[in-house]
Amino acid sequence: MIKTIIGNIDFIESLRGKSATFMLALSNTATINIKGITQAGIPNLIHLTPTLDAEFVCVGEVRCLENIAETPKGVPTPALMSRGVHLLRPFKSIELLNLGLEVTPKLNYFTQHNFNIKPSGSIDVGANIDAEAVFQKGVAFGQSYECKSDYIILGESVPSGTTTANTTALALGYDAKEFFSSSFKNVPNNIREETIEKALSNIKDKSDLFDILGSVSDNMLIFNAGFILGLNGRLKVILAGGTQMAGVLLIVNSILKYMGGEMDSSNLALCTTKWVAEDKNSDIKALLEMLDFPINGYFVDFDFSLSSHPALKLYDDGEAKEGVGAGGALCYGVLNGLDKKTITNKVETFLS
Amino acid sequence: MIKTIIGNIDFIESLRGKSATFMLALSNTATINIKGITQAGIPNLIHLTPTLDAEFVCVGEVRCLENIAETPKGVPTPALMSRGVHLLRPFKSIELLNLGLEVTPKLNYFTQHNFNIKPSGSIDVGANIDAEAVFQKGVAFGQSYECKSDYIILGESVPSGTTTANTTALALGYDAKEFFSSSFKNVPNNIREETIEKALSNIKDKSDLFDILGSVSDNMLIFNAGFILGLNGRLKVILAGGTQMAGVLLIVNSILKYMGGEMDSSNLALCTTKWVAEDKNSDIKALLEMLDFPINGYFVDFDFSLSSHPALKLYDDGEAKEGVGAGGALCYGVLNGLDKKTITNKVETFLS
Repeated sequence: MIKTIIGNIDFIESLRGKSATFMLALSNTATINIKGITQAGIPNLIHLTPTLDAEFVCVGEVRCLENIAETPKGVPTPALMSRGVHLLRPFKSIELLNLGLEVTPKLNYFTQHNFNIKPSGSIDVGANIDAEAVFQKGVAFGQSYECKSDYIILGESVPSGTTTANTTALALGYDAKEFFSSSFKNVPNNIREETIEKALSNIKDKSDLFDILGSVSDNMLIFNAGFILGLNGRLKVILAGGTQMAGVLLIVNSILKYMGGEMDSSNLALCTTKWVAEDKNSDIKALLEMLDFPINGYFVDFDFSLSSHPALKLYDDGEAKEGVGAGGALCYGVLNGLDKKTITNKVETFLS
Repeated sequence: MIKTIIGNIDFIESLRGKSATFMLALSNTATINIKGITQAGIPNLIHLTPTLDAEFVCVGEVRCLENIAETPKGVPTPALMSRGVHLLRPFKSIELLNLGLEVTPKLNYFTQHNFNIKPSGSIDVGANIDAEAVFQKGVAFGQSYECKSDYIILGESVPSGTTTANTTALALGYDAKEFFSSSFKNVPNNIREETIEKALSNIKDKSDLFDILGSVSDNMLIFNAGFILGLNGRLKVILAGGTQMAGVLLIVNSILKYMGGEMDSSNLALCTTKWVAEDKNSDIKALLEMLDFPINGYFVDFDFSLSSHPALKLYDDGEAKEGVGAGGALCYGVLNGLDKKTITNKVETFLS
């Protein structure tokens, strides 16, 4: 049920039965305020999505709002899958990375790493991130982090994150315009392209890598690039996400070139959903193939074909694809003996 | 669903819900080249069986050949059961012991312990093993091995291993001629007896225990006897196998007598399949009763009566009985909540 996008199956098979820390990188970018750019949440309250996602995965409740985040079309957040797996085969622990949230999740007892990072600006006018500082915070975290389980599953919740990831890749010179995913089925290409063009026009006089990232990227992408480089293969990590996590790797790749460094990528893999892996409007494999270091990429052969719930069927229709570590969480479930029917049934209980 | 052969149920019940390291002892003996002696694999490629078994249990693929090992009559390897359990209730980790393989399993990320042991010769002309060296490697491994789970399940894949085990027991003076199992239903007693007689005739002038073992035994038997003595009860171990694993214990017993030593056997048990425990052509219980130390022996009340797959029904017909740690793996599955139907269904998915 776990399939290879790139590399071979051995890395993920070697994690079968092992315990994992589920880490959720949460951030807000004002890019969400561009009308029509994202559907990852409730209109006018999209900035709450990462906060609500984190609350729901941790405790099964949303506290900063009445309901779980869903799109205007009624697509429920992928957090349902991460929570569902956690109920069936619990992660050893869940830890949150606050990488610039407008609203802090209301949670006791759960570890919330705070890095004093502010929400970033909208990339069409410049994200205004001190990228080198955010990156160095990631590096320091990677160097010092002590993991109490066998590996880390690193997911994210960043509304508008595919737009910032796409822009970042282009700004770094990757020929990746058509390769990035979106939470939309019918991607609003005009709005997205306009935004990307505006963002890229803001950096046309810049040559410093961190200046560029600070203008067009988001905190999640920059911090996690630092985190991975800081770890340098010391711990096993599954990047649980789609094209955004590929974007993290592209930044890592660029920084290694920029700084002339090397990294041990043997303990690093990306794992996403089938909806991303088979998406016709993006190409995760092509993104991973752009890296100069070897990488294992996987997807979980899970969909909602066993469900009759209309909100879940929207995933199979392409209306939502990934997020909140869903791909990595599903992978963890399968690696610990879960099957499609069991996961589907559990997710359905959240909607009835 | 777990039944006692000898001892009482407490040891195995105390392992319910605990995590296990699945260790697979792999070795080749040229004894397989005696025409008709074994059916544990593909004719002319039987030497690949342990390699393919290890690959299949670890990653669900065979890499050194196109298909999983099956006998000429179409009996699929017991590795199917070990892999099936691992998918449903994963072992904490799988580790391979290379005790003289002709072809190394093509696996990344999985621990392969290499002891620089060569495949052994055919026992009809002398196995030509430096038995004391192999034994001491086992002792050293047992003394130094660090286990990251609650107990070890030690399985094996050694084609012709029941013949070498049988010969070893006789060579050590145990009155065990009729007690050893075979992967055949209709055991080719003539070939087997001829081989055993030839092997025994080669040692009639020998009195040194290790000289005898070096001529009639195999690396798996000798190494694991050392491993168990080296552990000396420090870790909990399930010997996952039938009469071959009983053979390991008989060697341990002889060495203790020969060297005048003692061993703590309270953390040691043997666990096998129903097909071995109820086999009319062998007697695992009689073998265990020959030991001078107390031992717990179990079998799992699992068969393929719920399957209609003809290849699996061959097990119930007695055409294959045990191997690749199947008995111990089934036991682990049962100790972690699996039932017969669930295991059967999972094994069937490999054959469809």
